[in-house]
Amino acid sequence: MDLIQKLADIVGSQHVLLDDDVSSRARGIWDHEAIEAKAIVRPKNTAEVSAVLKLCNEIGQKIVAHGGLTGLVEGAITSEDDLILSLERMTEIESIDPVNRTMTVQAGVLLQSVQEAAEQVGLFYPLDLGARGSCTMGGNIATNAGGNRVIRYGMTRDMVLGTEAVLADGSVVSSMNEMIKNNAGFDLKQLFIGTEGSLGVVTRAVLRLREQPRSQETVFAAVNEFRQLPKLLKLMDARLGGTLAAFEVLWNDFYRLVTTPPALQEPPLSQDYPYYVLIEALGGDPDGDKERLENALHDAHESGLVAESVVAQGESHRRRIWAMRDDVEQTTRFQPNYIFDVSLPIPNMENYVSTVRTGLETTFEEFTMFTFGHMGDGNLHFAISAGNDHSTHPAVEKCVYEPLRDIGGSVSAEHGVGLEKKPYLDISRNGIELDLMRTLKRTLDPNGILNPGKIFDGVAA
Amino acid sequence: MDLIQKLADIVGSQHVLLDDDVSSRARGIWDHEAIEAKAIVRPKNTAEVSAVLKLCNEIGQKIVAHGGLTGLVEGAITSEDDLILSLERMTEIESIDPVNRTMTVQAGVLLQSVQEAAEQVGLFYPLDLGARGSCTMGGNIATNAGGNRVIRYGMTRDMVLGTEAVLADGSVVSSMNEMIKNNAGFDLKQLFIGTEGSLGVVTRAVLRLREQPRSQETVFAAVNEFRQLPKLLKLMDARLGGTLAAFEVLWNDFYRLVTTPPALQEPPLSQDYPYYVLIEALGGDPDGDKERLENALHDAHESGLVAESVVAQGESHRRRIWAMRDDVEQTTRFQPNYIFDVSLPIPNMENYVSTVRTGLETTFEEFTMFTFGHMGDGNLHFAISAGNDHSTHPAVEKCVYEPLRDIGGSVSAEHGVGLEKKPYLDISRNGIELDLMRTLKRTLDPNGILNPGKIFDGVAA
Repeated sequence: MDLIQKLADIVGSQHVLLDDDVSSRARGIWDHEAIEAKAIVRPKNTAEVSAVLKLCNEIGQKIVAHGGLTGLVEGAITSEDDLILSLERMTEIESIDPVNRTMTVQAGVLLQSVQEAAEQVGLFYPLDLGARGSCTMGGNIATNAGGNRVIRYGMTRDMVLGTEAVLADGSVVSSMNEMIKNNAGFDLKQLFIGTEGSLGVVTRAVLRLREQPRSQETVFAAVNEFRQLPKLLKLMDARLGGTLAAFEVLWNDFYRLVTTPPALQEPPLSQDYPYYVLIEALGGDPDGDKERLENALHDAHESGLVAESVVAQGESHRRRIWAMRDDVEQTTRFQPNYIFDVSLPIPNMENYVSTVRTGLETTFEEFTMFTFGHMGDGNLHFAISAGNDHSTHPAVEKCVYEPLRDIGGSVSAEHGVGLEKKPYLDISRNGIELDLMRTLKRTLDPNGILNPGKIFDGVAA
Repeated sequence: MDLIQKLADIVGSQHVLLDDDVSSRARGIWDHEAIEAKAIVRPKNTAEVSAVLKLCNEIGQKIVAHGGLTGLVEGAITSEDDLILSLERMTEIESIDPVNRTMTVQAGVLLQSVQEAAEQVGLFYPLDLGARGSCTMGGNIATNAGGNRVIRYGMTRDMVLGTEAVLADGSVVSSMNEMIKNNAGFDLKQLFIGTEGSLGVVTRAVLRLREQPRSQETVFAAVNEFRQLPKLLKLMDARLGGTLAAFEVLWNDFYRLVTTPPALQEPPLSQDYPYYVLIEALGGDPDGDKERLENALHDAHESGLVAESVVAQGESHRRRIWAMRDDVEQTTRFQPNYIFDVSLPIPNMENYVSTVRTGLETTFEEFTMFTFGHMGDGNLHFAISAGNDHSTHPAVEKCVYEPLRDIGGSVSAEHGVGLEKKPYLDISRNGIELDLMRTLKRTLDPNGILNPGKIFDGVAA
């Protein structure tokens, strides 16, 4: 009996997609090439995932789990020899406990569905990404997704209390912890969070819900010197108590781009400052929180940290400010367009950005570079264009990644490694770390069937 | 050349303690029996730890790392065949970066030293435990210590950005990440946080510092029914924004004990309520925060969640309220005295406490039981006394731990497993989880030399 028949016996033949049903699907939300794979198998629960993996493990069949395919680092790319395990049928929100403030979900549930289900019981799931309508819990967990509210609520790792995961051999590791505190032995879910599907396939999770914010205050401010940015961050963080949720910095190049036609937003402040900051607080006391923010902002002006600022007046004003920050789409007017996601210690940031710029100047006669990021987390994004086609990608990558080596920076703040950043992982991780990652991989997936070749090479299938 | 001589060659002979220098030391802060061990070896840096472990691994010498010995679960107990690796000389605070808000330390640094060093640069290390003057960073990390501010700042896992750890074979895994966001490959530090020294010895760490709170508001409230407690938690959490730091519940039995002579504190509220709550907020705006708390408390009274309450007026008043909550010492008047640390979903808590009480009533003619805990985290503590000597311990443990099995509770919320809870770990962890823990142990420590026999059996040395 061949593999396809055996898979059909597990999930039902209508859930083993072949040929055109595979190639008619795109590789990702932002990658319109056709998927190549032996088949797409669509289990409906953990038991079926377990049976599929057990079968694949026995015959050495490589298998790649698919969530919403919104990743940016080629973390779910397959070839014609791979089998795709799609969690698209595992979309059940199994339960919500409003007293314990937890939600139990299958891994295929969309982020937006979780956000909405929490809202319906008066609670809040704080993770938020542009891809909310497409990305899934399984993908969020596998990549330890971050987003715009990390300063206040942390990354996905901080929002997941328990996981159920299937190992390569089909073993089901069910660690569906529902408590904030649990030190009874090793915290096994850490093996599956942020490991990009290479140690196991997450099938279910217990999520921690929070109270809904009752106030949202947004400020947009212009800053004259880089060294004032961490001072402003510190002031806001101290004064706003635990409510500071975002501290997004826009360099002048990015700000001009997103506030000049054909971009749709008008510039809320003069376009002549070197830095702009979007500050947002999510609090519990609408009147008091507004006053507190205004007092803090007043002091920031008094002490010269802020040159000019505007406080969002109402929801539509707030949306216009965020729309500007989120209009990364404008950078695609410059092709080829390379987006980067790095992190580094804040004291190194100003020099680092100059070093990248100098590197590009040395390498290319012409280029564009737009800089922005979640500076409160040490996370910077660049959108860089150089040359006429993708042949310039490696040289641009070198300009961005190499300067991180000596300052302890990371080639991936929040997007993961996948295939795209694999060649540069050694900039952020030393040989012993990479050996230990490979050791874990070999231990949990000795036949190398799970998402093979992603993150690192060297574990034979 | 024998082991002792080889160790002396690595660390210097004055740092290999033998005989009386070993047995004159107590096994722990709360355990005055003499230490038994072949020797105590005291390296001064990671390189020396590495050399010691490499040597021990080659000859199969069992080795147990010692921090401040403040643990409560027999996690650092040794026998005469073991070698003790004491980190007591590794007390350097290597650097503080006030802009990046990080501190780099050796593992032997005391928690209190970290707190004080952070304060000196206007920052804050939020972990706080009664043992702050004795416990060390290495011990905090190995046990994922929690404490009184978990609701706002998380556990140790959330405060450690990077670690340097030595594996059993002497390999140094240096992952001294300084960023809040870093998804460049597996997050290896998770292997060493909360694993009680069984997968490696942490020698250095990068800690995340926070802004100092600028306000501290404390309320003590009486509550009539259990079901009002989670409602009060929810109200306070929502209204106080991100500033809620503690939500400690005292059952009537515990409250009476700590507010009746010979206990030193006067009862701030009548002794007739079934539950009392200590609520604390750490904020950024002294005036506004006080008003906000008072408004929230007013609404809690209006909606009938709180029967009576008192707001701490000034620092000495606040200290008296905390002194009452922290006066666990009173329970030692009842001997034998068994302290428990469990966690469970909040909706199960009321029934669970009755079940424990019923179990004790069925088992013992007389007993005392005092209940209190960090209810905001699902974490309860009991102090139970029954019988005349420690022979009753297993029967009491059974009454406390067994009812956790069916409700997904944890036999260790924050203290870890050590030797003490090992017999009960299967209540909170299934067979596949335990197998996976053993697999990790065998992979990273194939000769079983690191803190052997703690957490679980079954990995041969």
